[in-house]
Amino acid sequence: MKTAEIVSVGTELLLGQTLDTHSAKLAKLLADCGIVCQRRSTVGDNLARIEAVLRESLLRADVVLTIGGLGPTMDDLTRDAIALALDENLVLESGFEAKLREYFAARGVPWVESISRQAQRPASAVFIDNPNGTAPGLCCRKAGKVVIALPGPRGEFNPMADGPVRIILEELQSGTVIHSRLLRVCGMGESQVEAKVAHLMHGDNPSVAPYAHPGEVHLRLTARAATRGDADLLLNPLDQAIREALGAAVFAIDDATLEAAVLQLLGERGQTLAVAESLTGGGLAARLTTVPGSSKGFKGGIVSYWNDAKTDVLGVKAETLAQFGAVSAECAKEMASRIRLLFATDFGVALTGNAGPDALEGKPSGLVYCAVAKGDNVEVASFQWRGGREDVRLRSTQMALVQLRERLLNSGA
Amino acid sequence: MKTAEIVSVGTELLLGQTLDTHSAKLAKLLADCGIVCQRRSTVGDNLARIEAVLRESLLRADVVLTIGGLGPTMDDLTRDAIALALDENLVLESGFEAKLREYFAARGVPWVESISRQAQRPASAVFIDNPNGTAPGLCCRKAGKVVIALPGPRGEFNPMADGPVRIILEELQSGTVIHSRLLRVCGMGESQVEAKVAHLMHGDNPSVAPYAHPGEVHLRLTARAATRGDADLLLNPLDQAIREALGAAVFAIDDATLEAAVLQLLGERGQTLAVAESLTGGGLAARLTTVPGSSKGFKGGIVSYWNDAKTDVLGVKAETLAQFGAVSAECAKEMASRIRLLFATDFGVALTGNAGPDALEGKPSGLVYCAVAKGDNVEVASFQWRGGREDVRLRSTQMALVQLRERLLNSGA
Repeated sequence: MKTAEIVSVGTELLLGQTLDTHSAKLAKLLADCGIVCQRRSTVGDNLARIEAVLRESLLRADVVLTIGGLGPTMDDLTRDAIALALDENLVLESGFEAKLREYFAARGVPWVESISRQAQRPASAVFIDNPNGTAPGLCCRKAGKVVIALPGPRGEFNPMADGPVRIILEELQSGTVIHSRLLRVCGMGESQVEAKVAHLMHGDNPSVAPYAHPGEVHLRLTARAATRGDADLLLNPLDQAIREALGAAVFAIDDATLEAAVLQLLGERGQTLAVAESLTGGGLAARLTTVPGSSKGFKGGIVSYWNDAKTDVLGVKAETLAQFGAVSAECAKEMASRIRLLFATDFGVALTGNAGPDALEGKPSGLVYCAVAKGDNVEVASFQWRGGREDVRLRSTQMALVQLRERLLNSGA
Repeated sequence: MKTAEIVSVGTELLLGQTLDTHSAKLAKLLADCGIVCQRRSTVGDNLARIEAVLRESLLRADVVLTIGGLGPTMDDLTRDAIALALDENLVLESGFEAKLREYFAARGVPWVESISRQAQRPASAVFIDNPNGTAPGLCCRKAGKVVIALPGPRGEFNPMADGPVRIILEELQSGTVIHSRLLRVCGMGESQVEAKVAHLMHGDNPSVAPYAHPGEVHLRLTARAATRGDADLLLNPLDQAIREALGAAVFAIDDATLEAAVLQLLGERGQTLAVAESLTGGGLAARLTTVPGSSKGFKGGIVSYWNDAKTDVLGVKAETLAQFGAVSAECAKEMASRIRLLFATDFGVALTGNAGPDALEGKPSGLVYCAVAKGDNVEVASFQWRGGREDVRLRSTQMALVQLRERLLNSGA
């Protein structure tokens, strides 16, 4: 099998100022293409150090991918370092330079000489088109090795990785793919999940690994096979066995989110939803509306952050707040009923609680009530979360989605 | 100055399944302690490869920090690899093994022989206490080099990094700190910012580096000095000069967010805010309420995702929607006025538009209107964003905050 290494370039990465998400994306892509990633390295914007790490990587791996350092500024040194590591000169693509000049002229941006560095390439390189920026990527093939260089800005990097780079890597692959499938589980803790599937976790191919996330457990099933189809054939019986062990707690696979799963159930039933939020401040609505097409089932909501807003806009009774407070089961239930009526939906979901950091109405940080109304039937649950403000808010939206999903599943198709 | 390298161990990192946040945290810690991090490497759970990367790092750097691979399972090989790289044997700390046995017995967990691997250490190592797990860290000092090994689980890693490891690193530091300050700029593109501060960007100590983020530009000012106080003395005049060049566009420093800056202005003026959202689906409200104490100025909002909700709940005129559509300046203005009235606030902010992916009312994906109402005065702006759904939504909340901030600044203290 072909081997690869990834080299991320940027002093901001070495200083810990930015998180290297690109390198994780390329690592996934390599695995998808059946190329074994054996090392990832990060170096700063220093020509000698970039050259050194490239020379070392080229000794060990068939494919070396670099991220960053392709821009026009003096800090952008990856292009030069690749040429050095391959013992080549940089050559200027004058046709491309002319295009850059046109591009800048059309935008009325004055030309500075450094921009033309982006039209340079190591002699063995071809450009990889960058539709979202001025710095093209590079692909060098020399002495059986391949070097692929990509720019760092996310909007440029992502489409290049998903498009031309995937194609180059797929062509290189040697007849084996590493294929993973993620089973997403909600409403159960990690140890509970492990207890139920422990007997399925001893295999090597396919293998199962659990990962805990806030309010979810992900089981990663991985198989190696000649093709993705063959890998799927290995994964399917394992997938099936896990679903039998966990039942409806498996809510989605791969990148599908809990909010998407809930919206799909709503859509299948032709039902609608509105949400009333206090401590989550719109976070539940925002999660739901990340899903394209969410407007099919999600009509909207009210963020009743002040008590005024709970009574005057949402229509919670002032007596309820006076008697039980905003952080109460009674308030949550009334919020859920009211939002359902105001938006004329099938379901109303409400979240109220104390996101912290301080006590509120004498109630501790992390105490949260979630109510789900369907018709006249309102169910409420309470939770006491630990952790900071963002943890409490995230877990609260998660619990609301889990509760709503259970109501949807129990209310039949 | 002392140099360091970080080695992350874990096949899940090489497969891109988990993001290496620990390594960024250690990188920051090194910078804080004035130790220059020159390289970060990631290798899988493979003894020979971990040993190889450790031997290489030890040739280049004074300090090598490892993350992961200290647990009891067969995959946990960092302990063994460090011993190999240092040409040492592993020795068993029998006192610590006895403690582990007690710990497991007290919890009724059966002892398996592999657990005792956690009581092993390279001969030159001392244990670093791990109050939240069974695998201790390691600190080896040999021939002028220091190797520090930390376990991977977040709840164990973080307190060890912040506590004993920081102390070890501070003791190693050579009387120099690298101190950074981030100036956050909004309402200006990166090239506009660069044009205004280009004359300030040539220094080496202190230095300035710009980073573009959606709707913001961050300028990182970095200084090296004997103490943090001395570094601040180098940064202050540069900070001042940049603020003079950019004016009010500098909205915050370091980790302070735009939403926090806006809420602070509101608080200083004793004014209140409510928001009406369509395409952002609660994302603006959610951003505002991430800030602790946001309830001082933020009263709440309405997510009017369906047109029904715009008319029936928010009170936009049906004629407005019929004549101009929901994606229109007219609708945005009415939403802003209505939300201000409903919530009885000083400011009302509204966002409506098409988040994509498809055209809506014949209007393109990415077309967004943002209105800010104060009293009877409503101002509206329109934008045509490129990019995917999440980009459009993020940029829209950003533009709403920028617009609101301008209104706040222009309306005086």
